[in-house]
Amino acid sequence: MGSTFGQLFRVTTFGESHGGGVGVVVDGCPPNIEISATDIQSDLDRRRPGQSRVTTQRKEKDRCEILAGVFEGRSLGTPIAMVVRNEDARPDDYAEIAEKFRPSHADFTYEVKFGVRNWQGGGRASARETIGRVAAGAVAKKILASLYSNFEIVAYVTQVEQVVAVVDRSAVKQADVEKNVLRCPDEVAARAMVALIERVRAEGDSLGGVIECVVRGIPPGLGDPVFDKLDADLAKAMLSIPATKGFEIGSGFAATRMLGSQHNDPFEIRGGRIRTATNNSGGIQGGISNGEDIFFRVAFKPPATIALRQRTVTRSKKETALAARGRHDPCVVPRAVPIVEAMAALVLCDHTLRQRAIAPDNRGSKPAGAKAKQSRSRARG
Amino acid sequence: MGSTFGQLFRVTTFGESHGGGVGVVVDGCPPNIEISATDIQSDLDRRRPGQSRVTTQRKEKDRCEILAGVFEGRSLGTPIAMVVRNEDARPDDYAEIAEKFRPSHADFTYEVKFGVRNWQGGGRASARETIGRVAAGAVAKKILASLYSNFEIVAYVTQVEQVVAVVDRSAVKQADVEKNVLRCPDEVAARAMVALIERVRAEGDSLGGVIECVVRGIPPGLGDPVFDKLDADLAKAMLSIPATKGFEIGSGFAATRMLGSQHNDPFEIRGGRIRTATNNSGGIQGGISNGEDIFFRVAFKPPATIALRQRTVTRSKKETALAARGRHDPCVVPRAVPIVEAMAALVLCDHTLRQRAIAPDNRGSKPAGAKAKQSRSRARG
Amino acid sequence: MGSTFGQLFRVTTFGESHGGGVGVVVDGCPPNIEISATDIQSDLDRRRPGQSRVTTQRKEKDRCEILAGVFEGRSLGTPIAMVVRNEDARPDDYAEIAEKFRPSHADFTYEVKFGVRNWQGGGRASARETIGRVAAGAVAKKILASLYSNFEIVAYVTQVEQVVAVVDRSAVKQADVEKNVLRCPDEVAARAMVALIERVRAEGDSLGGVIECVVRGIPPGLGDPVFDKLDADLAKAMLSIPATKGFEIGSGFAATRMLGSQHNDPFEIRGGRIRTATNNSGGIQGGISNGEDIFFRVAFKPPATIALRQRTVTRSKKETALAARGRHDPCVVPRAVPIVEAMAALVLCDHTLRQRAIAPDNRGSKPAGAKAKQSRSRARG
Amino acid sequence: MGSTFGQLFRVTTFGESHGGGVGVVVDGCPPNIEISATDIQSDLDRRRPGQSRVTTQRKEKDRCEILAGVFEGRSLGTPIAMVVRNEDARPDDYAEIAEKFRPSHADFTYEVKFGVRNWQGGGRASARETIGRVAAGAVAKKILASLYSNFEIVAYVTQVEQVVAVVDRSAVKQADVEKNVLRCPDEVAARAMVALIERVRAEGDSLGGVIECVVRGIPPGLGDPVFDKLDADLAKAMLSIPATKGFEIGSGFAATRMLGSQHNDPFEIRGGRIRTATNNSGGIQGGISNGEDIFFRVAFKPPATIALRQRTVTRSKKETALAARGRHDPCVVPRAVPIVEAMAALVLCDHTLRQRAIAPDNRGSKPAGAKAKQSRSRARG
Repeated sequence: MGSTFGQLFRVTTFGESHGGGVGVVVDGCPPNIEISATDIQSDLDRRRPGQSRVTTQRKEKDRCEILAGVFEGRSLGTPIAMVVRNEDARPDDYAEIAEKFRPSHADFTYEVKFGVRNWQGGGRASARETIGRVAAGAVAKKILASLYSNFEIVAYVTQVEQVVAVVDRSAVKQADVEKNVLRCPDEVAARAMVALIERVRAEGDSLGGVIECVVRGIPPGLGDPVFDKLDADLAKAMLSIPATKGFEIGSGFAATRMLGSQHNDPFEIRGGRIRTATNNSGGIQGGISNGEDIFFRVAFKPPATIALRQRTVTRSKKETALAARGRHDPCVVPRAVPIVEAMAALVLCDHTLRQRAIAPDNRGSKPAGAKAKQSRSRARG
Repeated sequence: MGSTFGQLFRVTTFGESHGGGVGVVVDGCPPNIEISATDIQSDLDRRRPGQSRVTTQRKEKDRCEILAGVFEGRSLGTPIAMVVRNEDARPDDYAEIAEKFRPSHADFTYEVKFGVRNWQGGGRASARETIGRVAAGAVAKKILASLYSNFEIVAYVTQVEQVVAVVDRSAVKQADVEKNVLRCPDEVAARAMVALIERVRAEGDSLGGVIECVVRGIPPGLGDPVFDKLDADLAKAMLSIPATKGFEIGSGFAATRMLGSQHNDPFEIRGGRIRTATNNSGGIQGGISNGEDIFFRVAFKPPATIALRQRTVTRSKKETALAARGRHDPCVVPRAVPIVEAMAALVLCDHTLRQRAIAPDNRGSKPAGAKAKQSRSRARG
Repeated sequence: MGSTFGQLFRVTTFGESHGGGVGVVVDGCPPNIEISATDIQSDLDRRRPGQSRVTTQRKEKDRCEILAGVFEGRSLGTPIAMVVRNEDARPDDYAEIAEKFRPSHADFTYEVKFGVRNWQGGGRASARETIGRVAAGAVAKKILASLYSNFEIVAYVTQVEQVVAVVDRSAVKQADVEKNVLRCPDEVAARAMVALIERVRAEGDSLGGVIECVVRGIPPGLGDPVFDKLDADLAKAMLSIPATKGFEIGSGFAATRMLGSQHNDPFEIRGGRIRTATNNSGGIQGGISNGEDIFFRVAFKPPATIALRQRTVTRSKKETALAARGRHDPCVVPRAVPIVEAMAALVLCDHTLRQRAIAPDNRGSKPAGAKAKQSRSRARG
Repeated sequence: MGSTFGQLFRVTTFGESHGGGVGVVVDGCPPNIEISATDIQSDLDRRRPGQSRVTTQRKEKDRCEILAGVFEGRSLGTPIAMVVRNEDARPDDYAEIAEKFRPSHADFTYEVKFGVRNWQGGGRASARETIGRVAAGAVAKKILASLYSNFEIVAYVTQVEQVVAVVDRSAVKQADVEKNVLRCPDEVAARAMVALIERVRAEGDSLGGVIECVVRGIPPGLGDPVFDKLDADLAKAMLSIPATKGFEIGSGFAATRMLGSQHNDPFEIRGGRIRTATNNSGGIQGGISNGEDIFFRVAFKPPATIALRQRTVTRSKKETALAARGRHDPCVVPRAVPIVEAMAALVLCDHTLRQRAIAPDNRGSKPAGAKAKQSRSRARG
């Protein structure tokens, strides 16, 4: 259990870091959405290892194959299955960890939970599992873009350890993010972050950071009272990403130090529409989108795998020590940017379908495949 | 949709702030758990309005009736239905809000989402909905206590605006929390918080704060890879509580400023068991409990309802102003403490049942009703 | 678990035959559907005991109270909670069954499963649980009627023991069904059935029968490949009704004796639309509605409660005998007609919402509340 | 949606008849269950085309690859992903059906539902989809066999058109079933069925039939009140199989012609245990297993694909005619036997896990992996 995400747009990932491969089944994709392997691959390439000097140097091509659910470039409305074969497996790196529990990894908890473990690597706790999420997220982005004309989802690094970027959240574009390997739109901060990461990597240590994500073009009305609030589902989505330790929406923890009169977002009429003058709510009120930009931040801890020697224990309860060998990410945030985007897209796509199911008026939310209605009407007679 | 929480321990709340009543159906409660109306009422009393000078002065008795699922003081294994009648409704307080959207409330988003709204009050977005959660949480606590001998769940206020409490997380007990109306175990900070709240209330304004929660006695192995990580489900649970803006587990956002070598929790043998020397993980590694204390923090914004005059708009898109009348909470954190506990209990109970389903060995996790096995064996022959 | 039905239109029933009451929570009802207690009560009255000489003579008023989710006569889009109080409880009838397992009842299986049982009556296995289903079904019928202009759902008795009715399935109306207490549109057969039931009741025995149900006005396209086929979900819905033993859709078991050339339904153009010339498919092909009438049959066994003396055993494994006292249904089919309709409505309503979520074109499927779009547009600006 | 089955043992199939391949993800498999590709292949071989003279002559090897979730011959507790590549695709057979709707196939309903269709074959409605079910069913059987010492599941053909077999349900074994190509344990009837099928195939027509399934060794207590009754879930499982038209449990439709005094199963003490003297209940009472053999029957219509010329219409609403070319099954029941078994195993496995979650006493239901508890205890300390 636990490998499926979403109620209507249901994403099931599978696969260990070692073994045949990893992948995903997306059930609930509306029909007639244009989907190509290229769309998927483009996001996978932003996630994959070895893409730049601040990530792990492991080379994995992560070629995605669409096995089912797409025909002549369009979704069929049936499950979309995508697989990426595993390669570059070097289980000898991992011989030691069959016996020793790596500190702050999932080795110990998996072993206790299941009584068995694929000790060749991180198993399902490996970042490699997120390939399926990113592939599914690419599909979700296509659906959202087909429905919402101004839809945009932009995540970026705002902090690495003490280095904090200055980013204009209302203006930042994905092109700004992709300008550097850090995926930080503040070029000055990005350079400092790169330098910091390279120094800490050389020391055999690792660094944490913060990713911020802004979503534009989401209409008001997404999100369900009371448990499936849009921000609650985003929180779950983000905390399900490996190495995350916190989530905040809109004003976040800073809200705890504000007065109500400062925090409340006054309503006003702007451009003929009901808008809020400020956006401490982060685009969500009472768990439901209000039409403003949705934004949130996610805290990532420093990766647990470090070259420095650490205390630990063996499976047979002997105290020992361990130092990671091989090639690892000294800081995950640059590669985690597309994962954050993907998980946000999954949540928004699911809630979009949920809202379509009950909306009194579905105007303005027809998918790209609306043109297919001719053939459908034809068929229906 | 959205009113059900949990996979196996399934909690469905219902009810608006105005109308017949609010309540909850708990499906999936194991049989033979001792449950009494008193158990439920005790937590409801910690949540209800009018309990102290720092909460709203509205008086609501919130008497809980168990309609089904309990027989002769024990759960039947069938749905437990609990209802609290609404009373003290004063819809004239709310006549104005039928037309004007209250800033940072859910009035606008509900109206856009549903095209209809119970304008007599907050509807499902009202804190009154949490009655059902607290009642269900009381049931969950009974189940957890019957399974885990050292089980304890303690939430408390650690911050109100700028006032920060000093609390020994490893030692704090519920009795320490209930010593003052603030539910803050640091008596000095509690007094400052009370004074602050009284001053801000007099000014017609409101305050935010932070609640920390620690859970003890949870065995290793709870939580499911990959989406239903224990911390991911806790994050969702907490962000589904009205007025929350952020969640962090263990080291939380502070982790982003630490090095891996500082953050990793070394394993050691202590008391003959595998333990971690530190607990930056917050008791959860790879989404699965590791047997250490689980702890997390939740950010609450200042309540949106304030007596100060605010700008807003009407349903017919005229700009106007609004000032709340009546009796409201100037700061929700004291009353939110049992809600945080309840939601944590729901998550832990659900994952407990999930783990029982697949655990290779269920020893040590027999519910209190294990004695019922005699009658069962008898029945089975 | 197991008390919730549906993916988007989620119905959770609760309540034992004895105790505070029974009821239902309906989550996922679209907003702005006209719903009144009278709508609900009308179907409950067709289900309740004591309504005619062929049912049990127990008198239960089964008055339904709507606790939440409806405001000013319209659904809010939030959970609709409905409760019926228990009354006329005579637990002394049941003292004996605390010790003796009634043959072909659920006493034994509940006791083995849960290790505890409400021995005052049938608990959740009581037909009284179906009150919640019928109430939820009444809501579902309102939704379906608001969406599909020619929607009609008509169930009726076609067989009691050896007496088989002749019914024109394409023409039968609910008024024809309600003309007699048997709910059998063939008056001649109905009279024979009544006579048979009265004779068998006098003998202390009971009778089985068959209910057929036809649904008109369902558009093509409802039902999901591959597990949630419309007929698969109808089968589950029907087999979840107490005392059912079989289900068949369209040609049913008779199909097993036909050749493909006889069984296939040729397509033709009729009234400008694609239609089938015959309807052995029962309105469903590949698990998806094809626009023709949907029809199916459900087999009901004779009620297990009979006045005749029967062999059984006690909880302490002694062989003994038992004869039911009190007032019981000698044949459940007349009262089961509204239950079959209700369960069919739940399935169709759920799949309607599911199809709305993905449909490339939602034209023609706007709910009655479509007029609410003005206020919504107004709100949206 | 609709491609996932089960609550705890969750099976998601994917794949069209044409395209990359078909497969399944099984989430919720307990850890430490012995699973090999051979186990899976053995059931797939019973399902595949071309296995005998009474099935289609298409040759498909249907080689199953396990991509994830199994390590060193044991389940990891993580999703098991299995894929079978498509081959032997001859889309030229299907050019005609891109335009013409095949009668009593899902071509028309898929096109109306989705507005798009993989016209190269039956898409998801193809029997090829059931490969994923059979593979998942093979896993489920391994789990059930590891938990229940006398577990056995035996399905067989009891009827083809008018030819009815005589089978001793209480004694029949899988070896008896596999003795002939019909999978009918009555050799005389089997020969008549083979002759009938060969004749009807020569005539270009097709035949229906009935499969009966008996499950032995299931303990009392599986199945949930009220919607997820064990028989309700079996009914859904069976009606989700392509070409099915009916389901009956135990006495089935015959129950409708019996008196309560004949139908009730008296309890007695046999072998020191509480047993029923007869088994009209089919092993399930009140939706919960009672420890007796579970048995049910499934009706299959004659396959829709026939060589005889049939009336139909085109996508552009012209009336036309169609005759199937190529190699097709004249009667599906011999190949459907392993599918019925698989779906039954999925239901029983899911309910087994569900019962483990709440059972007051889990003794006697430890999976094969119980020996893993040593290493687990070791790990836990």
